[in-house]
Order: sequence, then structure tokens, then C-alpha cells
Amino acid sequence: MAKEGIIARAKDYAQWYLDIVREADLADYAEVVRGCIVFKPTGYAIWEHIQSGLDARIKETGHVNAYFPLLIPKSFLMKEAEHVEGFAPEVAEVTHAGGEKLTEPYVIRPTSETIIGYFYAKWVRSYRDLPILINQWANVMRWEMRTRPFLRTAEFLWQEGHTVHASEAEAEAETLMILHDVYADFVEKEMALPVIRGLKTEKEKFPGALRSYCIEAMMQDGRALQAGTSHNLGQNFAKAFDITYTDHNNTVQHAWTTSWGVSTRLIGALIMAHSDDDGLIVPPRLAPVQVVVVPIFKNDAEKAVVMDAVKRITTGWKGQIRFKIDEREHLSPGFKFNEWEVKGVPVRIEVGPKDVDKGTVALARRDIPGRDGKSFVTQEGLTERIVTLLADIQTALYERALAFRADRSKTVTSYDELKAQIETGFAYCWWDGSNEDEKRIQDETRATIRCIPIDQPQGGGTCIYTGRPAKTFVVFARSY
Amino acid sequence: MAKEGIIARAKDYAQWYLDIVREADLADYAEVVRGCIVFKPTGYAIWEHIQSGLDARIKETGHVNAYFPLLIPKSFLMKEAEHVEGFAPEVAEVTHAGGEKLTEPYVIRPTSETIIGYFYAKWVRSYRDLPILINQWANVMRWEMRTRPFLRTAEFLWQEGHTVHASEAEAEAETLMILHDVYADFVEKEMALPVIRGLKTEKEKFPGALRSYCIEAMMQDGRALQAGTSHNLGQNFAKAFDITYTDHNNTVQHAWTTSWGVSTRLIGALIMAHSDDDGLIVPPRLAPVQVVVVPIFKNDAEKAVVMDAVKRITTGWKGQIRFKIDEREHLSPGFKFNEWEVKGVPVRIEVGPKDVDKGTVALARRDIPGRDGKSFVTQEGLTERIVTLLADIQTALYERALAFRADRSKTVTSYDELKAQIETGFAYCWWDGSNEDEKRIQDETRATIRCIPIDQPQGGGTCIYTGRPAKTFVVFARSY
Repeated sequence: MAKEGIIARAKDYAQWYLDIVREADLADYAEVVRGCIVFKPTGYAIWEHIQSGLDARIKETGHVNAYFPLLIPKSFLMKEAEHVEGFAPEVAEVTHAGGEKLTEPYVIRPTSETIIGYFYAKWVRSYRDLPILINQWANVMRWEMRTRPFLRTAEFLWQEGHTVHASEAEAEAETLMILHDVYADFVEKEMALPVIRGLKTEKEKFPGALRSYCIEAMMQDGRALQAGTSHNLGQNFAKAFDITYTDHNNTVQHAWTTSWGVSTRLIGALIMAHSDDDGLIVPPRLAPVQVVVVPIFKNDAEKAVVMDAVKRITTGWKGQIRFKIDEREHLSPGFKFNEWEVKGVPVRIEVGPKDVDKGTVALARRDIPGRDGKSFVTQEGLTERIVTLLADIQTALYERALAFRADRSKTVTSYDELKAQIETGFAYCWWDGSNEDEKRIQDETRATIRCIPIDQPQGGGTCIYTGRPAKTFVVFARSY
Repeated sequence: MAKEGIIARAKDYAQWYLDIVREADLADYAEVVRGCIVFKPTGYAIWEHIQSGLDARIKETGHVNAYFPLLIPKSFLMKEAEHVEGFAPEVAEVTHAGGEKLTEPYVIRPTSETIIGYFYAKWVRSYRDLPILINQWANVMRWEMRTRPFLRTAEFLWQEGHTVHASEAEAEAETLMILHDVYADFVEKEMALPVIRGLKTEKEKFPGALRSYCIEAMMQDGRALQAGTSHNLGQNFAKAFDITYTDHNNTVQHAWTTSWGVSTRLIGALIMAHSDDDGLIVPPRLAPVQVVVVPIFKNDAEKAVVMDAVKRITTGWKGQIRFKIDEREHLSPGFKFNEWEVKGVPVRIEVGPKDVDKGTVALARRDIPGRDGKSFVTQEGLTERIVTLLADIQTALYERALAFRADRSKTVTSYDELKAQIETGFAYCWWDGSNEDEKRIQDETRATIRCIPIDQPQGGGTCIYTGRPAKTFVVFARSY
């Protein structure tokens, strides 16, 4: 039975997503600022945990944070040919400031390759200055036509890494290291979401990149969501902004740069991958509240006894478990259970007078609805039990998503089979088509090549579309 | 002897500040984006530690983080009379987006009372929804005429808290709690900088506030720097944006709001309060690197022995001490000592072959230059010794700043005495003047009333300017 205010996934997946965002109190539409949202406290807290997990990995791999200006001289966008084509149509422009018209307009950064490239050109002189390994946490703005909370908003929050290297090999190694050790590792371990790591096709790559890599995850409607991208920019931006260095032989060389980013759309991915018809489900490692304790009492005498037990039970949790005791008095236990279910708290503990007598608590798992997820356990050893349970839930969510993806993935050998498969999931196939072929398939099916997975099968096959012998194995899907 | 590239404070304090910012590699001028800077990794890392100390206090006092849109419809600014006067002249305006002219321009937030007020009006219905206790970490933009790195930049980073309450008393309690428990506590304990807590005069208060409180710190040239402000906004914004709630008696009431913020100008305060002619000095609790270990060796054999000792010595430091081992081979120890001094690392440890033989290390305190700050200690018990030393340095910096402020503060009883005193420090005096009197004094002396300290002396005195009997004791100073 679905919750009030939440339509079933099977009935209307797109509406279900919006219902979850609203009922779990994650975001509000900023109707007065076109295409923008307010990240409400519950939604923003998930972002804070995403940031913390990513930031730790970004720093562990040798990067440091910095902050570059929000505004970019409009002419900067024009310096890299593909980049201007990709971003110029969707920028917001600042034309007046301090009461005066500006001689040259600024754009609000849609991404920062150009402004950061300008500074890197100033900072890099010799091979001794390399590599530069900098990341930035920032807001960016892209004036998109169709927006959806978290998944696509005019303003969004992200991290963007920008690095400079002395050789193509080093830039490529950086690009792949970020893909594997930062992005895939984070999304799989913390978000409990399996990803395909792959290379984007020429048609789908970042405007201005030499090669774009991505991680792609499957949502519960079988569509793909690009959860992170890492770009080897070659020497394109180094040439556009004149980032040069003097090498060991005293020769001036253009440098090699990379950029890579993940954004608040990860919150959308998290919602769509794990939640159910009862509301949000948050993986324990990212849950702002991992355990909610609901004391149950009918009068002050019961309250005293129960709250005493709750205090005893939760002693020592601080620093180990992120928990909340829901002491609100004007709401019934049933109302509270429902609210925390909708908000996706992984574990609920109920303590009533009978539990106090028996030395037990009721323990409910959010990921297994109803009776199957509920058990009655002794208060003794509860802390360790919960720590283990949270880890188990994290694993269970990952395994469930992995099994779901396996179930919805298929290798196809004809275009008709592909068309059928992408209605509900991922279609793997051999590919030897052109950009134009890819475009035609997109027009006909609304599916795109999500990536050329890094794990390629041996040998080759027949291209699904052209019938030519093909060496490249790709995955097609509809996507967010 | 001052360092190369850094002028002595006594010679030119303003230039000394800029020299420190450049030589310690804290920021770069973004000459292509007027009045903006790049927060370089060394400078941004200090901000990250500031954020972390503030964020912990903001959360401990019951607040949660959220994120509101960067852009504000221009008409929103006009809704509060004083607010528009204060901010409209210095906003940056977005007039075009997605290739089209907008029907109504947006401004980039100079502060967010108006856009947040709009949402609070939607969210608040009943007394049960109150209080709302939200904080936001964000970038803001004010098109200032004269800018200086960190102290005043067109774009800056800050936190802005925005709360809603059911009564004036609750709003006032929140405003003061933030002043004492969040801002003053943070700046004194983490930044090692004593502050005066006080109320702003009508002339100096925030545009749209009922009452503005502030913390004021003294820099090494005797000038004041406002390090944080907390505003009781009364019902001004609640009326402008119609933030109302139904009270216990089912009557609709306007709510009471507060706002409070500190920004990246704290980095400027930190530099100006503690640093010396040799470079930056960072208090240990905010230092991204607290201890630098410089191994000293002449050949590979020595290197092996020394690095072995360094590894042994630093075992167990991770998680306890933020440290860096400077293994760079193309630089001399002297060059490294100098670099880490300029960058303000609190403690330097030198380990050479002789130290390995004797089981000792050389240990240098950044806050006490030269021989006085250097000692030779046994490797045994070094970790505990360093932990204690870092705490001692933190205290020493605070005590030094406190003694300096005491030395440069004086109670004055005539206008002439005031004029002399504000040349080098703070002038305390009795006050019964008007806004116009305050303005005249500012024109004549460039000093303003920094605040009416919360700690007021008993009784009263004679107003320094009007000669009338006065009940209010104030502090005058020139300021940043």
C-alpha cells in the first residue's frame, strides 16, 4: 500500500519521484527564480554527507581545494571552439553592476574551465610547477529549458576538479584515477549504487574534451543516470588559454589538462535508485539520521520510565551512530513511524513500557517494509547490533540495486531487440556506427550510447545498426 | 630583519598585508573580474578550517543548513525600505539568460534576507512551525568601489543564518546567543583573537535591522575589524514578505526574524592580527599544516637514515596532528625553513644525521622568531610534547593579542584626547550624541563608534562630544 501523497512507481515513475521530493521535504520549487530549487534542510543534509565522502577521497588522492570567481568575462567562453558551442546558449549574463552598464558582460559560470585556465596560464611556468591538482566546491548555472528537482536545475551545486599535467599519459592517468578511485568508489560504497565505468562516444563527450569518461547508474525505471564525468581535455584548453611550461630540456610546451565533476544530481540518483512506494530510502552511510528512536507512552508516569530507558540505551551512541530521539508530544507514534519512513531513516527503534519491562526494543528496517523488516531484540548489545545492521542494510541496498540492474540488462543482437530492451533497461551490443547513426537511433528510440564500458568483452561482433564487423561493445539506454 | 618581499609592518602596514597575502600564496587578484580574487589553496584551506569550527557551533546550537537560490528577483530588494537603500546601489544584475532578455532582471544575492523571507512566508503557518533555525554557506556579491583581498572583495564566501521566531524576546535571545556562543566563542578560541561584543549604533546597523550586534577585534595597527554581525530584524522583513503564523489563540501574527553572518574577511583578520614581518602566523587550531618536518641530509646514505627516523617519529601522528614532511630534494633546508615561516606553519621540526645519533630533534616555534623559539628535545615523548606545544602557542597568540589590545585601548574624556587615541588604537568614552554628531566625528577623524559594548560600566559620565550627561559607554576606532 502506497503512502498518502505518493503515487506508486509502477503507476507513474516521474510523478512518484516528485512526490518523494515533496513528501520527504527535500526541496522546494523556487518558482520566482526560473528553474531553481531550494535545497531544504533534509535534502541539503544528504548533500553534506555526499560532499564529505567525496572531499575525503579527493584529498586522499592528492588534491587541494581552492575557489575561483563566479563570474567569467563572456569573451573567455569563446576561446575554445567546442566549448562555446556547448555552453554559450545556456548562460546567464551580468550586464550591469554597481548601477552602471558593464563594458563587457560577464556570464555566471556554467563550468569553470575557461576562468581557471586563465589563472593556470599565469601560475604555470616550469615543469616543477606541475602537476597542479585543484578542486573547487561551487554553484554553477545553466539556463536549461526543462528542469526537475536535483536532476536538472538552472543553478546547481557541484565539485569541479581542474588539473594540469606535463604529458598526455599523466593527464589520462589522472582522468581514470578520478573515475575509479574517487567517483566509482564513492558511488558504489557510499551511495550503494553499482555503476558502469566507461568512455563517452564523440557525440556525447564534454564540449572541448579529448576524451570524456563517465559512470552510469541504473534507476528503477531502467533508465540510465550519468553520475559523474571525468574529462581528459588534451591540450585544447591549454592552447586556448596558453598554459605552457618549460620542460627539463628548457623547451616551452603546452600543458595537458583534465576536469571532472559530480553535482547535486547525485541526490536525485540516490532517491530514484533506492526509494520505494512508502517514501525515501537513504543508504546508512549517507543518512543524516541513521536511527530514529520513538519512545511510546500514554502518560507522564510511562514517559518517565520509557525516557529513562531510551537515555540508557542510547548512551555511547554519539560519535558512533547518527541518531535522533523523537520526543514530540503532540504526535502519535503511528504518525511518527510514517514520517520517518517517508523521510528514509534506515532504522527505527520503538521503546514502550512493555519493552522496558522485558528489556527489549522493537527494531524496524526501512529497506524491508512491514513485518518482515521488524524484530524484537534485547537491549543488551544493542549498540553493536545496530552498527552491524547499518552495515548490512548498506550491503543489502547495493546488492538489490546490482540484482535489479542485472535483471534489466541484456546483450542484444538486432536493432528490433535493442528497441524492445531499452523500454525497460540497458541494451548491450556491438557498435561500428557513426555520429549520425547514433543521432538517428536517438531520434527513433530516445536512447543513446551511455558509454563504451572500460570492461570490454574479448573479440568482436556485428554492429547492431550498420551490420559491419565491430570491435566496440557499447551500452544503450534512455537516460536522465 | 624582514623577509624578502615583505615590507615591515612599522614602515607600511597596508603594504605589509598585501605582501603577506602574496608571499604566503593565499590569494591571487582576479584582474579580469573586477574586485574579485582567487582563493588559492593555502588561503582556502584556512577557510575550510574556519568553516568547520563555525559549522560545528552552528549545528550544536540547533541549526541546520540549507541552500537558497543565488539569484533574487530585483523587485524583492525593494520590499524593505532601508534594505533597498543599503544594497541596491551595489548589486550585479542578470538581464539576459539562455540567449533572451529577461522580463524582470535578477540580482546576484548581496545577502539573502529577501529571497529567504519569500520562502519562509510559504513555509510558516502555525506556531508549531517555529522556530525555523536555518543557516546557509554561500557566495555573495557586492559591487564595492575599493577592494582588498579577503577584507573587501566583490564576491566573497560566507555563512548567513536566517531564523524565524514567535516573539521579539525569542528573536533577541537567538541574536545574542549567536553573538556569544557561536561568533565570539569561535573567534576567541579558534582564531586566538579577543573581541568586544557590542551593539551597533543606529547609524551603523544593518539596513533593515531593528538592532545589530557585532564582535570587533583589534588589528596590529590599532584599527578595528568587524569580525561578525548578528541582527535582530524585528518584524521588518516579516512585514515586507508577509511571514505570519497562527498563534495558540488562533490569531494570525507577524513573525520575528534574525540574520547573522561571518565571511572570508575573517581570513584577513587572522592575517592582520597575528602575523609578523617574517610572514603569516596561523593559530594552531586553524592551521591546515600544524607541524612541518624538514629532514636534513647531504647524500643518499644520510637520507636513508634520516627518513627512517622521520617515519618513526611521526608514527601515530595521523588524526592527532596535521603535519607535512617536506621531502623536496631540489631545495635547501634554509629555503624550506624560510618558506614554511612565510606560510605561517606553527611548528617546524628539523631532523639531521646528528639528531638521529643523539635521539633528538630541533623544534622551532613560528610565534617566537629566531633562537628564542628554537629548542632541541629528545625524540622520546615528542608527540605529547607537540600536542602540548600547539595548545601553548594557541594560548600565547591569544594572550599576545589581548595584551596588545589592552596597551592600545584607553578611556578618553575629551574630543582632543579621542582624536589622538584613535591614531593608534581604541578610544572608550561616554556618549550622548546624535547620528549627525557621529557622522561629523567620522568626517573629522575617520573613526566611527565600533559598538556599544555589552559590558557597560556602572553609572554614567559626560558625552565626549556634546558635553551632555551620558549613560552610554562606547568605543571609537578607525576600522577596516
